Amino acid sequence: MSVFDSRWVGRPDFVSELDPGSLPSGFVAGGVAAGLKADGVLDVGVLMCMAPNVTSAARFCDSGVLAAPVVLCQAECDLQAIHAVVANSGNANAATGEAGLEQARRVQVGAANALGFEPRQVAVASTGVIGVQLPGEQIADALMGVGSTLDGGHAGDFALAIRTTDAIDKHAAWSVELPGGTIRLSAQAKGAGMIAPHFATMLCFVETDAAISAQRADRLLAAACERSFNRISVDGQLSTNDTAVLLASGASGIEIAADSADEERFAQALDALLRQLALLMVKDGEGAARVARIQVTGGDQDQAEAVAKAIANSPLVKTALYGGDPNWGRIAQAVGATLRGTAPLSFDIRIEGIAVCAAGAAVDYDPAKLADAVAHDEVEYEVKLPGTGSLAEYFFSDLSYGYVKINAEYTT
Amino acid sequence: MSVFDSRWVGRPDFVSELDPGSLPSGFVAGGVAAGLKADGVLDVGVLMCMAPNVTSAARFCDSGVLAAPVVLCQAECDLQAIHAVVANSGNANAATGEAGLEQARRVQVGAANALGFEPRQVAVASTGVIGVQLPGEQIADALMGVGSTLDGGHAGDFALAIRTTDAIDKHAAWSVELPGGTIRLSAQAKGAGMIAPHFATMLCFVETDAAISAQRADRLLAAACERSFNRISVDGQLSTNDTAVLLASGASGIEIAADSADEERFAQALDALLRQLALLMVKDGEGAARVARIQVTGGDQDQAEAVAKAIANSPLVKTALYGGDPNWGRIAQAVGATLRGTAPLSFDIRIEGIAVCAAGAAVDYDPAKLADAVAHDEVEYEVKLPGTGSLAEYFFSDLSYGYVKINAEYTT
Repeated sequence: MSVFDSRWVGRPDFVSELDPGSLPSGFVAGGVAAGLKADGVLDVGVLMCMAPNVTSAARFCDSGVLAAPVVLCQAECDLQAIHAVVANSGNANAATGEAGLEQARRVQVGAANALGFEPRQVAVASTGVIGVQLPGEQIADALMGVGSTLDGGHAGDFALAIRTTDAIDKHAAWSVELPGGTIRLSAQAKGAGMIAPHFATMLCFVETDAAISAQRADRLLAAACERSFNRISVDGQLSTNDTAVLLASGASGIEIAADSADEERFAQALDALLRQLALLMVKDGEGAARVARIQVTGGDQDQAEAVAKAIANSPLVKTALYGGDPNWGRIAQAVGATLRGTAPLSFDIRIEGIAVCAAGAAVDYDPAKLADAVAHDEVEYEVKLPGTGSLAEYFFSDLSYGYVKINAEYTT
Repeated sequence: MSVFDSRWVGRPDFVSELDPGSLPSGFVAGGVAAGLKADGVLDVGVLMCMAPNVTSAARFCDSGVLAAPVVLCQAECDLQAIHAVVANSGNANAATGEAGLEQARRVQVGAANALGFEPRQVAVASTGVIGVQLPGEQIADALMGVGSTLDGGHAGDFALAIRTTDAIDKHAAWSVELPGGTIRLSAQAKGAGMIAPHFATMLCFVETDAAISAQRADRLLAAACERSFNRISVDGQLSTNDTAVLLASGASGIEIAADSADEERFAQALDALLRQLALLMVKDGEGAARVARIQVTGGDQDQAEAVAKAIANSPLVKTALYGGDPNWGRIAQAVGATLRGTAPLSFDIRIEGIAVCAAGAAVDYDPAKLADAVAHDEVEYEVKLPGTGSLAEYFFSDLSYGYVKINAEYTT
């Protein structure tokens, strides 16, 4: 089955899809059940790169309440040469203080011992409930002997182990034809709630067997995150744990030089991969039935960004999206609430290309045609502010009974 | 039945409650069915002051998409001497352009003709769906002869006519003992959705038979709005139509002088009245089962405000409130998401006085006691940031299946 499922992300013609459970040369992965979740399901994922010259890059959220694994990675890991990742679900290890940091360290040391690395070579990540101490020793025990269970075809287990409320698979493996030769690119992600437009609440691990310098990897990862995970919202809630790591084994023997044609294509593939995974997070947004894209043009860039974000996070727009309700007055409301004090503001609104508001006032449209347009799985909104030159885009999910159900019953 | 129903607003001991359908001396009110809503229910409220020397003050929201009645009031009314108010439900007359302004003017002129005033003496207000033209002539027709139906005991009809999704009565009439004599104070409000913390989405009309200069009335209304309608959130969505008007007939013969003991008490009563009405809006928040107060202390004032607002508007906090879920990790998340880049941040969280997080980390608490504390109708959250001297407060409702139901089905 193809990972591509949205008209908003196309498959680059130099990309072929592989078994999504496979990994590029030099990588193995797997999952263990450490007892963080009930019923013995996989809850700790392990990813390892066996190439000696691995390079890596990582991005983290900037919440004022950073989870212990994020703090540990930033403070103590060699982020340019990460050899392994250990990521657990079922517990965010956030708001857990010094004790939480110590628990994260136990997991890191346990994984390093089990896999034969230095602790600084092992990145840790957590996702799940906030404010509960992580049983680090218990995880370290579960990791003993994990090395022999890892496999280049077990990326699906890794992806499964890092899920929380996710219902949709979010992993893919691609073959990418570069001018310099064929490389592989894969990624495993999770994310369905507490998803906000500033480095969305998620984990994503990306692997390639291309050789890339850590500096270029960082630049490529940053650019791709900006157009993917930073452009989505399920509920406008910035997480404490967001982590994205890119690892490059170099095992393909193909080196991606800075500013080369290879790099350009690699960047395109990485962009498509992360955008598609980000869209899957929105599609898998807690309780989501429909997803939407808002594109705001005009205004200055800050205004366009703020308006797009306000629309993406408006519970009124989101419930209308859920209800298949073409209530564009709520989009007008969000525009006005964001650009306060600017009345009378001239703006246009189009829904699936149908003009509903021009120069700030309602225009005639065919209600039946509009009702049909908002009844599909993907809905596109456009807002045009006065002026030209700016463009801001967000992808977002609706607000449904399912979201309330999932989040009213999460810990109790 | 008393309007006071929350531990967060007390009845001042110099206030006695009267029949909530009554009005102070010099005022009459009523409602007509103009056909904006189905089934011939009242949908246009009319309020009139018969005293020749009426003074008034008005506040409006500052959305960039202001409704036509707000534009008309600000541009063409004598806001210091409003003699009558005509307010309709069922149609917001927002995003309706020049045509909408003309419709609002027809309503204003119709009411002025029916009541014997100049148009500039008549304030207009609308609430309901955005982006649909208001049938101004139809309303003007319905207003013919309305004068003879108005009565000093018909404030309940007026209040009914301005309701949209409101389920709870939001009007009160008080007798207020001032040092200088007894005056009356009454108000009728509406508001249940699109309620945001910057001059919340609502209409509120306040009447008194005290004599107050327009300048002092403006100051008193501004101060009371700041502590009431500007402190509440149902869904964080600023409206296009917010309007509050205070009218003083002077018919009691008691004059409230600037900076007098009379003014101090009057301000206290007005504060209690508007805070209580604001709390009723939150309690009546679309689909709301529980309401909460968040008080943030410490930090600088901007930080305290931003954190309190983020918590009040967080769908994760709101769904936890609805579920009776003591999931304080979501409060920590909202703190961190607001104060980005400040990690590690030292902050405390208390729920109903129970400490759950201190210096940024979880502390031991009795889960049964906490579960019981969040199961009541009103829940109090406290966040303490580093530092002292600041205090920010918001009242907010939960996010329930009912909110989704109401807003997914609103126009269709």
